Amino acid sequence: MDKSAAVGRELSTAVVMFHEAVGQKLGVSAGDQRALTLLRGGPLTAGALAKEIGLTPGAVTGMVDRLEGAGLVRREPDPNDRRRVLVTPTTPGHNAHSNVFTDLSAAMAAMMTRYSPAEQKIISDFVDRTVDVLKEQTAKLTVKK
Amino acid sequence: MDKSAAVGRELSTAVVMFHEAVGQKLGVSAGDQRALTLLRGGPLTAGALAKEIGLTPGAVTGMVDRLEGAGLVRREPDPNDRRRVLVTPTTPGHNAHSNVFTDLSAAMAAMMTRYSPAEQKIISDFVDRTVDVLKEQTAKLTVKK
Repeated sequence: MDKSAAVGRELSTAVVMFHEAVGQKLGVSAGDQRALTLLRGGPLTAGALAKEIGLTPGAVTGMVDRLEGAGLVRREPDPNDRRRVLVTPTTPGHNAHSNVFTDLSAAMAAMMTRYSPAEQKIISDFVDRTVDVLKEQTAKLTVKK
Repeated sequence: MDKSAAVGRELSTAVVMFHEAVGQKLGVSAGDQRALTLLRGGPLTAGALAKEIGLTPGAVTGMVDRLEGAGLVRREPDPNDRRRVLVTPTTPGHNAHSNVFTDLSAAMAAMMTRYSPAEQKIISDFVDRTVDVLKEQTAKLTVKK
């Protein structure tokens, strides 16, 4: 399985390099982009962001400060509970992030057309299981620290 | 292809989060780890590292300074050309990085056993092509900046 380890390293390096290039373009770190990615699903409280990202509340406050400073998100009161503050992408933040990923999604979609539906099913299963493995290993590293 | 875009985002977030957890454990940023990963293939000059990583020489100097400060790499003269300086992982640097990835590689290898050789070939092809797409998109982002 040495081949799969080497391939995994290459994939993982390629993902990290892509995120860094996106970060340089948007003026935010690869880490801070995770918040933007998560917020594409809708506004979140800082606490929910912290939990999803696996950061301390203090670190998430710094992350939201940086994204707010870059004009990519804003803090606003939750309309359903005025005591809570939601973090929301601004329109420029949403668009800048979207444009970058639109090109990637289109290129990935074009690449995927070379696979048959049965092959795509195997690939999708592999990706799901890889995400599970990565999450488990990330949790192990975080606990052992 | 919306499913593939969503899956891609989830995979890419999982990779970034894993790298950040590794970085926190080793005391280096996710970006700086790329240098450690590349150096697993053997010592490199700072110039070769800069080219591989896609950073300016100045940024790579800072990266090597940080890794050297953390005791993970050292600079030493190239035995074949004393005017050149090679960046080499230290033994503790090599081991710390290895241990983290040994667990991940083992978990990935165990997961891969569920696929037949024919399925593994499709997966390997998909991963290779995904790396190509990511590299192309990274290059486009870097040029357009």
